[in-house]
Parts: sequence; structure tokens; C-alpha cells
Amino acid sequence: MALIPLPEDLIPFLKEYLPATQFKNDCSKPFLTLTYAQSLDSRISKGKGQRTVISHLETKTMTHYLRFHHDGILIGCGTALADDPGLNCKWSPIGDTVSWRCSPRPIIIDPHCKWGYSGSKMQELKSQNSGKSPIIVVLKRPANLDANLDVTYLEAPLNVEGRFDWLHLLKLLKSEYGITSIMAEGGAIVINELLSQPTVVDSLIVTIGAKYLGQQGVEVSPPAGEIELDNITWWKGTVDAVMAARLRKIQC
Amino acid sequence: MALIPLPEDLIPFLKEYLPATQFKNDCSKPFLTLTYAQSLDSRISKGKGQRTVISHLETKTMTHYLRFHHDGILIGCGTALADDPGLNCKWSPIGDTVSWRCSPRPIIIDPHCKWGYSGSKMQELKSQNSGKSPIIVVLKRPANLDANLDVTYLEAPLNVEGRFDWLHLLKLLKSEYGITSIMAEGGAIVINELLSQPTVVDSLIVTIGAKYLGQQGVEVSPPAGEIELDNITWWKGTVDAVMAARLRKIQC
Ligand SMILES: NC(=O)c1ccc[n+]([C@@H]2O[C@H](COP(=O)([O-])OP(=O)(O)OC[C@H]3O[C@@H](n4cnc5c(N)ncnc54)[C@H](OP(=O)(O)O)[C@@H]3O)[C@@H](O)[C@H]2O)c1
Ligand SMILES: NC(=O)c1ccc[n+]([C@@H]2O[C@H](COP(=O)([O-])OP(=O)(O)OC[C@H]3O[C@@H](n4cnc5c(N)ncnc54)[C@H](OP(=O)(O)O)[C@@H]3O)[C@@H](O)[C@H]2O)c1
Repeated sequence: MALIPLPEDLIPFLKEYLPATQFKNDCSKPFLTLTYAQSLDSRISKGKGQRTVISHLETKTMTHYLRFHHDGILIGCGTALADDPGLNCKWSPIGDTVSWRCSPRPIIIDPHCKWGYSGSKMQELKSQNSGKSPIIVVLKRPANLDANLDVTYLEAPLNVEGRFDWLHLLKLLKSEYGITSIMAEGGAIVINELLSQPTVVDSLIVTIGAKYLGQQGVEVSPPAGEIELDNITWWKGTVDAVMAARLRKIQC
Repeated sequence: MALIPLPEDLIPFLKEYLPATQFKNDCSKPFLTLTYAQSLDSRISKGKGQRTVISHLETKTMTHYLRFHHDGILIGCGTALADDPGLNCKWSPIGDTVSWRCSPRPIIIDPHCKWGYSGSKMQELKSQNSGKSPIIVVLKRPANLDANLDVTYLEAPLNVEGRFDWLHLLKLLKSEYGITSIMAEGGAIVINELLSQPTVVDSLIVTIGAKYLGQQGVEVSPPAGEIELDNITWWKGTVDAVMAARLRKIQC
């Protein structure tokens, strides 16, 4: 489905929160934008694997505008398994021609190789030249890999809690693949973890859809408690609001 | 503490969502505004009984502006017990003179008489002529009432689930006490119940503070699932956003 036009006032609103060109050179980690759409009651879907309309088509276009401005797009394997997302970019400054060139590189956080690229929407888009093939971040790459399968595995160590260290991971993605900017789009586990990483996250862009999804929905709320934001600014659309901000750096 | 001035653009923004004068005459129930302040992760406090700053002082002034426009202000006994709130109005068109005249009548939903007026902030404000005495909605008024205690008990039946019926309750408040408009300010149980009552709630006004309170906070999210809204409009402040809307009426 074609996108509706991008509301013009979103461009100046987002400007300060996009990866800056100069950033690309002088930082060892990629610029990270954390972005997602939630209901008023902070649900990002009605239930795991249930397709849920949260936001207006104009903020959907915004997501593709953001994708255009990032080298990589990161999700957890929970989202890959539940939604089989395409993760390509349908927006470009010259109109909605979908090309792999404009699309960010999908990055799937999948320590235990739960998700399969074969037969996925990502593979379909790649074969149509309208998306890129993913980097799958794993503890150990699977044995007997199909050599024809156009997919890259990045091995990284898990810490004592069985998690990848975000900073280490991002640095690897820059040093190994030259990825200088990433947008993390979800799901809940990835978002909840990144919200407590002010040195990792450079921008936070949250769309709020004016509805409630209810207690059974997949929730965003940091387990560790309060999180303060800085440089807060709001945009209001036809029915949604978008908040852009930065995570407050912890004072030493 | 004195209030900061009301942002001028809040007045036209709220106009359509305030109790209309004509409404007072031709409806058997009071106009009901459901209003509260939440964090991005839909928490209305850090934890029960923990005082929590969610919104900017300008939206605090908005709350008092809303109080000025309603006859009654309704909360559950959970909030009365946890916060000991004053519930008076500090805003008036002629400046911030606090008077009982401008203040709404507190209505406490307290079926089992858990909360006590004696020694409360409400009693203190009443004694200073800067607030009204409450109506406490109970299943059965307590025995041995202190006749000097300036408080009104309204008895109402509980249904099989041990709840008051909202429509019945509101009609009683209108017929018995002439209350034509009420704002319900919380807490979570009251809000979650009212969100599923589109024939009872006339306006919904939600302030969103740009912070996260975390999973231990007191949450608003309707237990029964999805709730759609209509007539949605947003206001953006210095750091908060406010959404005003109506609950979507269920189609027959
Ligand atoms: N509204 C939106 O904007 C939006 C966007 C995206 C997704 N969603 C929704 O989100 C839901 C899925 O969310 P989810 O929370 O289940 O899944 P998720 O966050 O997409 O993926 C979680 C999994 O990713 C792996 N992972 C994440 N961080 C890790 C780390 N630091 N180290 C190691 N592994 C890590 C873990 O895999 P293991 O289990 O193998 O350890 C974890 O279980 C879906 O319903 C989807 O629709 C909504
Ligand atoms: N941010 C904000 O805007 C805001 C505003 C207000 C409160 N709050 C916060 O909310 C928290 C308190 O919330 P809460 O959920 O614990 O309490 P609450 O909603 O204030 O009160 C709940 C109690 O009220 C009674 N009740 C409510 N609806 C009823 C009905 N239909 N029929 C019969 N009884 C009914 C029940 O009493 P019984 O238990 O006796 O049955 C119920 O347990 C506090 O932490 C407070 O700070 C925040």
C-alpha cells in the first residue's frame, strides 16, 4: 500500500533528533534512535502476534521517513517471530519509489536463533530488490547454513544474565559493517531494555495513538522504575501525538 | 502554593469538552468529565501513596480551571486514603483567590467507609472556608455519627459484583444534591471502570507527562480490552501534552 504524504511540519520537528552527519565520524558507536508507537495505556500491540493499528497513516509515513534516515533498523526476535515484518523503507525525497537503496539494513537480535529468514517477508522484499537482507545477532551461528541464503550472522557474547551488552553490540555493528545509525523499533523487551541505557540511546521518538488497548496488550514500562527525559518536544497530528526527547544522562 | 497562569490557548482547546450550560436542564444525569495525569507508560503514581510529580505546573493550573467548571469532584477511597487530597479550586477568572464558592463538592466513593473525613485535608480546607465538605457514597452510613461533623453520606446499593452502578449513582447525585457536572479525577480503579462507560462519561481529558514511572507504578489500562475514542484533539505544552476526546458510543 502506498504511503500518504508526510505532514510538512514533521520535518522541522524531527530534525534535531535525526542522526547528524558529523556524528558518523567521531563516535565509536552508531547513533541510536529508539522509536515506537503506543496506545494511551502504553501498549504496543493488542497481544503478541496480533496485528494492531495504533497510529494514523500520517505517523506511519513518519516511520518510513525515519527509516530513510538510518543505516540499520533493529528489532528483537519476538517481533520478528510475531509479526514477520518487512522493515524496508517506502519513503524517499523523490516520492514513494521503494528501493533497497533507501532501506535500512534489518538487524534482528536473536541470541538463540529462534527466527528463520527463509520464507520471511524480509526475504521476499530482498528478492524483489525492495529491501536489504538482515544481520542476525546470535550467540553462535547455526551449523549447516545454506550458503545460498543471503543473510549475515553476527556472533556476540551473552553476559551473566544471558543478555547482549548493548554498547558492545552497537560498536560491533559499526566496526564490522560500517553502520553509523540505527533505529530500534521494538518490541517491548528491546524498548524496555534500551530505556535504561542513556549512553546508548541518542533520540527517543514515541507516537501516541489516541486509544486504549487494554491490560492484555504488550506493554512498554521500564522494570527498573522512573526514567526522566530532556529536550522534550511534541508534535500533534490529526489524531496522534508524537513526542521526541533524549534520555536524561545520569549525573556523576 | 499559588498557581502559575493558565496558558491562554488551553481555554479554546478545552471549551468543547466542558459541561455546557444547556446540558444542566435536559439530562437526568450530571455531565461527567474523566480527567487524570499519566506518564508515558500510563502510570498515575510511582506507587500507592507515593506523591508523584507527573505534569508541569501549567497543566496543574489546568486541573484547577477544570475544577472551577464543575459542581462536583469525584475520587475513589483508594486515592482519599493514599493522598489525603484537598480537592478545592485555586483558580478563578478574577485571579487565584481561593474560596469555597469556586470549589467543587468532593464526592468520595467509599462503599465500606474506609476513609475518615475527620482530620483530613478536606476538613482543614472547609474550616478555612477554602473548600467544600464532601459527599461520601457508602453502602450503609456508619453508626454513631458525630453530629457536628460536617459531612454528608449518600447510601447506594452495591450490585452482585460489589460495585455501585455508575449511572444510578450519578443520577442520585443530581436528584438528591442538584449536582449537574462532575469531574472524576481518579484513581486507577475509578478511571479503569469509567473508561468502559461511554454512556456515563461525556468528556475525557488526559495529561501526558513526558517521563516513565516504571512497572511498579499505579497503572491505568482498561481490563476489558480495546477502547476507541472520538472527537480527539491534542494540546501541547512546555513538556506535557493533553488529549481531549469522547469515548466512542457503542453502536447498536
Ligand atoms: N507498536 C510498535 O511500535 C511495535 C514495534 C515492534 C514490535 N511491536 C510488538 O511487540 C511485540 C513483540 O515484543 P516482545 O517484547 O515479545 O519481543 P522483542 O523485544 O521484539 O524481542 C525480544 C527477544 O529479543 C531478544 N533480545 C532482546 N534484547 C536482548 C538482549 N539485550 N540480549 C539478548 N537477547 C535480547 C530475546 O530473545 P530470547 O528470548 O531468545 O532470549 C528476547 O526474548 C509484538 O506483539 C509486536 O507486534 C510493536
Ligand atoms: N495522576 C493522577 O491524575 C491521579 C489522580 C488520582 C489518584 N491518583 C493515584 O491513584 C492511586 C489510587 O488509586 P486506586 O486505584 O488505588 O484507588 P481509587 O480508584 O481512588 O479507589 C478505589 C476504591 O474506590 C472504591 N470504588 C471505586 N469504584 C467503585 C464502584 N464502582 N463501586 C464501589 N466502590 C468503588 C473501591 O473501594 P473498596 O475497596 O472499599 O471496594 C475501590 O477499591 C493513588 O496512588 C493516587 O496517587 C493519581
